[in-house]
Amino acid sequence: MAPTPPEHAPIPVAILGATGSVGQRFVELLTNHPWFEIGALCASERSVGRPYREAVHWMQCTPLPRTAGAMLVQPCDPPPAFPLLFSALDASVAGPIEEACARAGAVVVSNAKSHRMDPDVPLVVPEVNPDHLELLERQGFGGGAILTNPNCSTIGLVLALQPLVRSFGVERVHVVTLQALSGAGLPGVPSLGILDNAIPWIEGEEEKMEAETRRILGRLESGRVHPAELTVSAACNRVPILDGHTECVSLSLGRRAEASELIEAWRSFRAEPQELGLPSAPARPTIYLDEPDAPQPRLHRGLERGMAAVIGRLRPCPILDWKFTALSHNTLRGAAGGAVLLAELLVARGGLERR
Amino acid sequence: MAPTPPEHAPIPVAILGATGSVGQRFVELLTNHPWFEIGALCASERSVGRPYREAVHWMQCTPLPRTAGAMLVQPCDPPPAFPLLFSALDASVAGPIEEACARAGAVVVSNAKSHRMDPDVPLVVPEVNPDHLELLERQGFGGGAILTNPNCSTIGLVLALQPLVRSFGVERVHVVTLQALSGAGLPGVPSLGILDNAIPWIEGEEEKMEAETRRILGRLESGRVHPAELTVSAACNRVPILDGHTECVSLSLGRRAEASELIEAWRSFRAEPQELGLPSAPARPTIYLDEPDAPQPRLHRGLERGMAAVIGRLRPCPILDWKFTALSHNTLRGAAGGAVLLAELLVARGGLERR
Amino acid sequence: MAPTPPEHAPIPVAILGATGSVGQRFVELLTNHPWFEIGALCASERSVGRPYREAVHWMQCTPLPRTAGAMLVQPCDPPPAFPLLFSALDASVAGPIEEACARAGAVVVSNAKSHRMDPDVPLVVPEVNPDHLELLERQGFGGGAILTNPNCSTIGLVLALQPLVRSFGVERVHVVTLQALSGAGLPGVPSLGILDNAIPWIEGEEEKMEAETRRILGRLESGRVHPAELTVSAACNRVPILDGHTECVSLSLGRRAEASELIEAWRSFRAEPQELGLPSAPARPTIYLDEPDAPQPRLHRGLERGMAAVIGRLRPCPILDWKFTALSHNTLRGAAGGAVLLAELLVARGGLERR
Amino acid sequence: MAPTPPEHAPIPVAILGATGSVGQRFVELLTNHPWFEIGALCASERSVGRPYREAVHWMQCTPLPRTAGAMLVQPCDPPPAFPLLFSALDASVAGPIEEACARAGAVVVSNAKSHRMDPDVPLVVPEVNPDHLELLERQGFGGGAILTNPNCSTIGLVLALQPLVRSFGVERVHVVTLQALSGAGLPGVPSLGILDNAIPWIEGEEEKMEAETRRILGRLESGRVHPAELTVSAACNRVPILDGHTECVSLSLGRRAEASELIEAWRSFRAEPQELGLPSAPARPTIYLDEPDAPQPRLHRGLERGMAAVIGRLRPCPILDWKFTALSHNTLRGAAGGAVLLAELLVARGGLERR
Repeated sequence: MAPTPPEHAPIPVAILGATGSVGQRFVELLTNHPWFEIGALCASERSVGRPYREAVHWMQCTPLPRTAGAMLVQPCDPPPAFPLLFSALDASVAGPIEEACARAGAVVVSNAKSHRMDPDVPLVVPEVNPDHLELLERQGFGGGAILTNPNCSTIGLVLALQPLVRSFGVERVHVVTLQALSGAGLPGVPSLGILDNAIPWIEGEEEKMEAETRRILGRLESGRVHPAELTVSAACNRVPILDGHTECVSLSLGRRAEASELIEAWRSFRAEPQELGLPSAPARPTIYLDEPDAPQPRLHRGLERGMAAVIGRLRPCPILDWKFTALSHNTLRGAAGGAVLLAELLVARGGLERR
Repeated sequence: MAPTPPEHAPIPVAILGATGSVGQRFVELLTNHPWFEIGALCASERSVGRPYREAVHWMQCTPLPRTAGAMLVQPCDPPPAFPLLFSALDASVAGPIEEACARAGAVVVSNAKSHRMDPDVPLVVPEVNPDHLELLERQGFGGGAILTNPNCSTIGLVLALQPLVRSFGVERVHVVTLQALSGAGLPGVPSLGILDNAIPWIEGEEEKMEAETRRILGRLESGRVHPAELTVSAACNRVPILDGHTECVSLSLGRRAEASELIEAWRSFRAEPQELGLPSAPARPTIYLDEPDAPQPRLHRGLERGMAAVIGRLRPCPILDWKFTALSHNTLRGAAGGAVLLAELLVARGGLERR
Repeated sequence: MAPTPPEHAPIPVAILGATGSVGQRFVELLTNHPWFEIGALCASERSVGRPYREAVHWMQCTPLPRTAGAMLVQPCDPPPAFPLLFSALDASVAGPIEEACARAGAVVVSNAKSHRMDPDVPLVVPEVNPDHLELLERQGFGGGAILTNPNCSTIGLVLALQPLVRSFGVERVHVVTLQALSGAGLPGVPSLGILDNAIPWIEGEEEKMEAETRRILGRLESGRVHPAELTVSAACNRVPILDGHTECVSLSLGRRAEASELIEAWRSFRAEPQELGLPSAPARPTIYLDEPDAPQPRLHRGLERGMAAVIGRLRPCPILDWKFTALSHNTLRGAAGGAVLLAELLVARGGLERR
Repeated sequence: MAPTPPEHAPIPVAILGATGSVGQRFVELLTNHPWFEIGALCASERSVGRPYREAVHWMQCTPLPRTAGAMLVQPCDPPPAFPLLFSALDASVAGPIEEACARAGAVVVSNAKSHRMDPDVPLVVPEVNPDHLELLERQGFGGGAILTNPNCSTIGLVLALQPLVRSFGVERVHVVTLQALSGAGLPGVPSLGILDNAIPWIEGEEEKMEAETRRILGRLESGRVHPAELTVSAACNRVPILDGHTECVSLSLGRRAEASELIEAWRSFRAEPQELGLPSAPARPTIYLDEPDAPQPRLHRGLERGMAAVIGRLRPCPILDWKFTALSHNTLRGAAGGAVLLAELLVARGGLERR
C-alpha cells in the first residue's frame, strides 16, 4: 500500500498554543512533516513578537528545530490565516479562539476538550471512527471547521478496545489508569506533590473517559452520533511517570472467545490510516506483548514512534470476562501525534480542499 | 477502655530474618514495646555472630536502636528458645524453619506466605477474623504454633472491606493496586527498572489477594475455614513509591445503601483490638477522608502510626455498585505492624500462656 | 542545664504567608510549642476570611492541626497586632510587609531574603553568631524589629563549618549542593522538569550562599558586621529529592589538623542554644556519622527532629585540605525550624520584652 | 572528510557479558553497525545455550533486535574465535577471561576496570589520547591484545577537559559528580535505597576518576605513559536519574583566558575520530550550551546520539579559575558507545589487521 500524497503539498499550518507541552510536541512532529509545513507559531500575549526559541521553555529531548526557533511568535487573535490549524490551547481559552478561527475559514484540529462533545463536532480516533468526520458537513462555519482529538486517557482505551469491538462486541469496560505527568501539561503537577506519591484523582478525567469512549464507539446516523450502548467505569490516578498512560482494563464481550482470538484480533488489526498509508500511522496500531511483565511505560511507550496501543497480560477476570493492561504514549498518540494523524486522515479523504 | 496488660510482662521474643526490610521494621516496633522485649535477632549464616549493627544495612529513617545494634546475630536453626517468635523470613526458606520452631515449642507469628493457606494455620487480620485463632487448637505442634499475617496488599483490602461486610454484605470486589517498592523487600526492585516506570505484574500477588481475602472473610465452622462466597478480581502493579499500597476498589454490596451509610460504617468501625486496647491497635482502623484527592500514599500512609486503612473518593460505579480508593502502609499494617498486633491479640486472649 | 522558660508564656504569635510550604511547617512547629501560641494565620487576599483548612493545600505528613485548621485566615496588611511574627512570605512581597509590621511594633523573624543583607538586620544561625542580635539595637523601628534566617543551603553549610572555624579557622570553602525540591516552595519545580533529571542552576542561590556565609561568620564590631575573610565558591543543583540538602564541601583550614580532631570538633560542638536549653535546639547540632555511605537525605534528614547538620565522609582533598559531605533538612533547620529557634534565642536573651 | 571504510568489512565480533546493562547497549549499537557484525553473544554459564531473547532481561527502550534475539548464548570460556571482542564483563570476572581471549589471538576492547592501569594496556578516549594505542605494540599476547575504555565518570570529564588542556593547559581539577543509576549496572542500586535520596559514595569511583584522568591526559614516552602533572579531586554521588552523569567542575588553567576563549575551545574542538570520520564519532565532541540552566541529564544526554560531552554554566570560581557543569551519557559515551568508537579508531588506524 503506497502512501497517499496530498495533491498540493506542502500545506502551510499554524500551531495555536505552541509554547506549551503539547504545542512543543506539535513543533517536533510537524518539523520535516512530508505534507505539512509550519507557517506560524501562535501563543498568548506574553510571548507574541519574541523568537519562539526565547518564548518557549523547550522541554523535549530532541533539540529545538532551528527553523521553528527563529520564528516570531504570533497572536491567536486575529486568527492566523492558514487553511489548517493545530490547537494545543488550554481548555480555559480554547473554546472561543477555536470558533473564531473556524469562522475565519480555517480547519482547526483541536486537542482541547472545549468542543469535543458538541453534537456537530467530530471526536475521532482515526483507526476507530473515521466516518464521524462526516459530521463536518453539518458545521456552520462556512469553509472553516473544528474537529477534535479525544482526551489522552481515552485514546489508548478505545484503540485497545476497537479490535475487540469489531470481532466480539464489548459490553462493559472497567478501567483504572496510572497516568503520566505530561498529561497535565506545564507547569502541571508540582514535583513536591507527586514524588514518592500517587494522586487518586484527576479532575474531570473519569467523566471524560466514560463519555468520550461511548461517543467514539458510537454510531453516526442521520447526522448524529448515537453513543455506544456500553457501560464504562473509570478510575484515574496520577503517578510519578513522565510519559505513557497505563490502563488496567477488565471487560465483558458480546460473545465467548478464546484468549488466542483476542490476541489475534489485536495483532492483525489494521484500519483506514494503515490502508491509506498516512505518514503518522503506526504500522501496527495495537501491539500485544507476550512477556509476563509487559507493557511498561518507559520500555514500550515509544514503540511505533509512540503511536500504538501496547497491550499485555490478557487473562480471565473473575467478575467480567477478561483483564488486560494497555499502554499508550499520552503526548504522542494521546495528543499531538493523534491530532496530526487526524489531520492527515482529513487531507487524504479530501476533506481539506473541499472546504 | 483500658489497655489489657499481659500478666507476666515483658515477654521475651526473637525475630527471625531480622536483617531484611520487614525484619528491620520488627526491630523498630519491638524496641520499647510495652509487652514484648527483643531477646534475640536471628538471621542467615552470613550474619550469625556479628553485632546486628554490622550485619544489617539499616534503611529506616529512625536511628538503629542502640540495644538491638549491639546484639550478636543468632542462627534460626536450632530454633531460638523463646516463647514467641516473629518471622520475617523470606518465603523461600520460611516453611521448614517456622515448622521446626513450632515443633520446638514456640509460637511463631509469621509474615511469610509459606503456611498461610494451611488448613490448620490461622490467617488473621485482628479487626476482621480474630475468631480464626481457634484453629490453633487443631495444630499438632504441642506447645508451639504457627499463625500468619496476610500478604501486604490483602490486609489493606480486607480492612477496608470489613465494615461494609458487617453492615451490608459484599458480593463482588474488583481491585487494582498501585504497590510500593518496600513490598518487594531488599534488594527488591532494581532502581533502573522502576524509575519513570510502572510494572504491571507482581508474581503470585493477584492469586494471593484473591484467595487470602476469601479465606480471611470466611467462616470458621467445625474447625475449618469456609472461604467467603465472594468473587474477587485483582490486578497488581508496582509503582515508584517507597511505602503505601493504593487500591482502587469497585464492589457490589449485599443490599442497597447510601454513600453516607458506607462512610459512617468506616468511620464508626471498631473491633476486638480496639475493645481490648491492644498497644498497636489504631484508634480508628478505617479512616474516611473527604478531600477529593485523598488518600495519597506519602501524605496518609503514616496516619494512626501506619496501622489504619485510609479510604476516600467513594462514588457510584457504573458496573458494580461503588468505587473508592483505599490506602494502607505495607510494611507497618501490611507486615511487621500487623504481625505485632496479631501477637498482642493472641496474648490478650490468653493464647500464649495456655500453650 | 535546665530549659529557660520565658517569663510570660505563652507568647501569642502570627504567621505571615501561612499557606505556603514553609508556612505550613511553621504551623506544624508552633502548634503545641511550649513558649509560643499561634494567634493568627495570615496570607494573601485570596485566602483571607476562609478557614485555614480550606485556604491551605496541606502537604505535610502529619495531619493538619485542628485548632489551626479552624482559624480564619487574616490579611498581612494591616500588620497583625502581635508582639512576634514569623514570616514565610515570598521574597517578591516580603520586603515592604515586614517593614510595615516592624514599624507597627512587632518583632519579625523572617525567612525571606529581602532584608538579610541590610546592614542593621541580624542574619543569624543561633549556634554560630548569636551575638549579631545586638544589631537590633541599631534598627530604627521603635519597638519593632526585623531579624532573619539565612537561605536554606547556607544554614547547613555554616552549621557544619562553625566547629571547624572555632577550632582551626577556615580559609577557603568550595561547596557543591544537591538541593531538595521543597527548597523551591509551592508550586515550585514542575514534576515534568525534574523527574529523571537534575537542574544545575538555582537562580541567585550561589551568590546567596557565598555572601551569607561570609556575613554569618563575620565579626560584629562597632555596630557593623565585617564579613569573614573567607573565600567561598558555591555550585548549586536541584535534584529529585523531597527534603534535605546535601552539600559536598572541600575546604582549607587555618592550621594543620588530624581527621580525628575535625570529627571530635563536630561531635563535641555545643553552643548557646544548647546551653540555654532552647526548646527547638538539637542536643547535637553537628553529628558525624562513620558509615562510608552517610549522610543520605532520606535516612538522616530527620535526625534531631531535622535540626542538625549531619556530616560524613571526611577525607583529604588533593586540592584544598579536606573533603566531606554535610546534610541538613532544608524546611526544618533550613527554614521554619531555624526561624523558631532564632525566636527562642531572642526570647531567652530577653530581646522580646526589652522592646 | 569522507568516512574511512575498513578494507574487509564487515568484521565479525563477539560481545562478552552480553546480557548485562552495558552488554545490551553493545547489542543495540552493533546491530546494523556499518563495519562490525555480531557473530556471537557470550555470557555466564546460566545463560549459555539459551536464545539471547530468553536469557536477557531486555531493558532498552528500542525493541530487542530480532537477529540478536535468536542467537544462542555462548560461553566466554573457551574464548570465542573472533578477531574483535567487546567486553562488558563485570570487573569481578573480567581480568582472567579477557587475558585468555587476548592470548587466544583476539583484540579485546574492554569496559571493565581490570586492566585499565596495566602499564602496557592503553586506556584511551579517542578524542584525547589516540596515540596511547601504540602501547599495544608492547603487549605480549601475540596476535591478541587488550585495550580499555575508562570509567563512565572519567570519560565525560576528560572529554570536557581536553579542549582546555590543548589551548590553555589545566593544572588543578575539582569535580563533584551526580551519577546516574545505569552506571551501577543490573541489578545495581535497589530502588528502595535511592528514591527520594542520594548516596554520597560510590565505592572506588573517586580513586578511579583521579588516577584515570591523569593517565589519559599523560604523555607516552619510551613506551610508557607518564601521568599528567595535574591535581584532581573527585567527590562522587549517586542520584535518582536513569542515564547521564552530571559533573560540577572547578579548575585552574595554565594561563589566563577569557570565558569566550574557553567556550570557543569547546565549540571548535575536533580530533582524530572526527578527522577520520569514524561511524560513531560525534560531529561535535564537546558542545557548549548558553541556556542558564543547561546541561540537564534528561534533556541533553542524547545529543550527538549520546556521544558528546555537553557543557554549560561557565563562570569564574572564587577559589580556582573557572567553574562549569559537564554532562555525558554514561552507558553510551561512557561505556558501550565509547568502546565501539575506540574499536573503530583501532580499525581505521590499521591496528586490527596488523595483528
